[in-house]
Amino acid sequence: MGLDTPKDKPHDRLAALLTDDMGQVNALIRERMASKHAPRIPEVTAHLVEAGGKRLRPLLTLAAARMCGYAGEDHTKLAATVEFIHTATLLHDDVVDESSKRRGRPTANLLWDNKSSVLVGDYLFARAFQLMVEPGDLRVLDILSNAAATIAEGEVLQLTAAQDLRTNEEIYLQVVRGKTAALFSAATEVGGVIAGVEEAQIRALFDYGDALGIAFQIADDLLDYQGESTATGKNVGDDFRERKLTLPVIKAVAAADAEERAFWARTIEKGDQRDGDLDHALALLDRHGALDATRADARGWADKAKSSLEALPRTELRDVLIDLADFVVARLY
Amino acid sequence: MGLDTPKDKPHDRLAALLTDDMGQVNALIRERMASKHAPRIPEVTAHLVEAGGKRLRPLLTLAAARMCGYAGEDHTKLAATVEFIHTATLLHDDVVDESSKRRGRPTANLLWDNKSSVLVGDYLFARAFQLMVEPGDLRVLDILSNAAATIAEGEVLQLTAAQDLRTNEEIYLQVVRGKTAALFSAATEVGGVIAGVEEAQIRALFDYGDALGIAFQIADDLLDYQGESTATGKNVGDDFRERKLTLPVIKAVAAADAEERAFWARTIEKGDQRDGDLDHALALLDRHGALDATRADARGWADKAKSSLEALPRTELRDVLIDLADFVVARLY
Repeated sequence: MGLDTPKDKPHDRLAALLTDDMGQVNALIRERMASKHAPRIPEVTAHLVEAGGKRLRPLLTLAAARMCGYAGEDHTKLAATVEFIHTATLLHDDVVDESSKRRGRPTANLLWDNKSSVLVGDYLFARAFQLMVEPGDLRVLDILSNAAATIAEGEVLQLTAAQDLRTNEEIYLQVVRGKTAALFSAATEVGGVIAGVEEAQIRALFDYGDALGIAFQIADDLLDYQGESTATGKNVGDDFRERKLTLPVIKAVAAADAEERAFWARTIEKGDQRDGDLDHALALLDRHGALDATRADARGWADKAKSSLEALPRTELRDVLIDLADFVVARLY
Repeated sequence: MGLDTPKDKPHDRLAALLTDDMGQVNALIRERMASKHAPRIPEVTAHLVEAGGKRLRPLLTLAAARMCGYAGEDHTKLAATVEFIHTATLLHDDVVDESSKRRGRPTANLLWDNKSSVLVGDYLFARAFQLMVEPGDLRVLDILSNAAATIAEGEVLQLTAAQDLRTNEEIYLQVVRGKTAALFSAATEVGGVIAGVEEAQIRALFDYGDALGIAFQIADDLLDYQGESTATGKNVGDDFRERKLTLPVIKAVAAADAEERAFWARTIEKGDQRDGDLDHALALLDRHGALDATRADARGWADKAKSSLEALPRTELRDVLIDLADFVVARLY
């Protein structure tokens, strides 16, 4: 999902409040993605890292640490770690999805080859682990290595669940935690851990990241059926055409009669799609109120994210994080 | 390289001396590669992990720790870590090499798909990092995360260097350290670190693993030009046909006249190979003594591995590791 439309986006306000920290993170990212021996590495990573990603995940780590009164510098290493893990998964995702575009530019696997995407992704993972070791905090290492495992497990689960009509909301949530929320929640949690705050606040930061990530991904999946292509960089119905079983369809399948079920089996499971199928799918989503229900779920998660932050001291950063949760679902109306 | 031929192989003697430890490692591997949520994961990993790999790398970690008098159990976690990293790199290598066979069986990317190989490899990397965090030793984490970065960097370097006639012995050595020696040396070094022995002994263990890994890889590359297909599971000249610039060819290219250089440029760089080219390549290797020189290099590294162990107390395990270094180059005559 793009975070581009309204003015004074919470994301930009976060970046403005954390300019100095983010400058250090960007310097670290450039320094650590370099490779003396393998010039292909900076070619591929520069393409991706400089491509104007929003750096939302490292901003979450920086915000969490500073909100909790952290006065050191190690949070920048953890923020860079989180961005490296994110970038590595993007490189591997593009191989897995056989994507040709990301953020409006050709993907690395198209410009170079799948081999480079796989191996440079591995390099960034390894660099992430080197970076996360440096602050010397074992709990941080535990959190981030667990997140990496959850991410990989979610990606594999998605591979088998995406076109299987038996996929229910529980499995969908596991996939979403893997592909999005696990890194969000690790990003915020490690900020609190490195700041040394009490357990209830660390838990609150985890809950915020988890709920924000889920809201973010549900909104993304919903916008695929209702968004305008300019705002999202995707066309309406891309997920349908790519036979992805996302939350709106899962809800419609759960309410389907035999004939509707046969339609979903043909279009999603078998991938036999004909003219007019997208319109029929949209009509079925509408008939069962699937988009409204999905929107309500996204809002529910955004509200959970906001209320989690009540455990934390009231600061400007906290206010912006609250606005960020609203913003993620603001375009769903 | 297969370690299959003679009786009383050092590898089997290592396994026999470390039966109990290795049983724990195997149990850990089975336990940690499981996934509640994504059944595809154990399918892919079982295929690979149960496929009769020699478990040489975890045996090195166990041997190093026990040789140094380690009495705890954490070395089994590090041994499993090393095997997971190795298995993950095999999965990704098979995608990168577009291989269809490994250890005489179809590769995972052929049985399932490249997507599964990429993502399950990522899962094993993440599981490796979870495991290595558990003993709570920051120096161990530093060593293993550095090894992971060296491995990935070496793989990317190989991608660009393999078909480039400018690749010299120095670059070859960097690639070999990445693809083989970095994990060998990390495997032995962490055994000493976890045992808490003095720096000189840790350094000796690193040097042993490094030199053993290099000898191992040079022997592998040499056998491709002189081995019998039954012993190696490869056919003579596979590397030539796959246009891999390994040490024998690097030596022949360095000594080549203009006509010979044109031959290597056509066959390796351009990949334009015709009937009789392999025979001509073998004749050129012979003309410049490239196979003899490569064999001498492999022996030199094996000798370096053996002499490194002099810093360590004389034990049965040490004797077997010395024999292992000899064994790696024993079939090169």
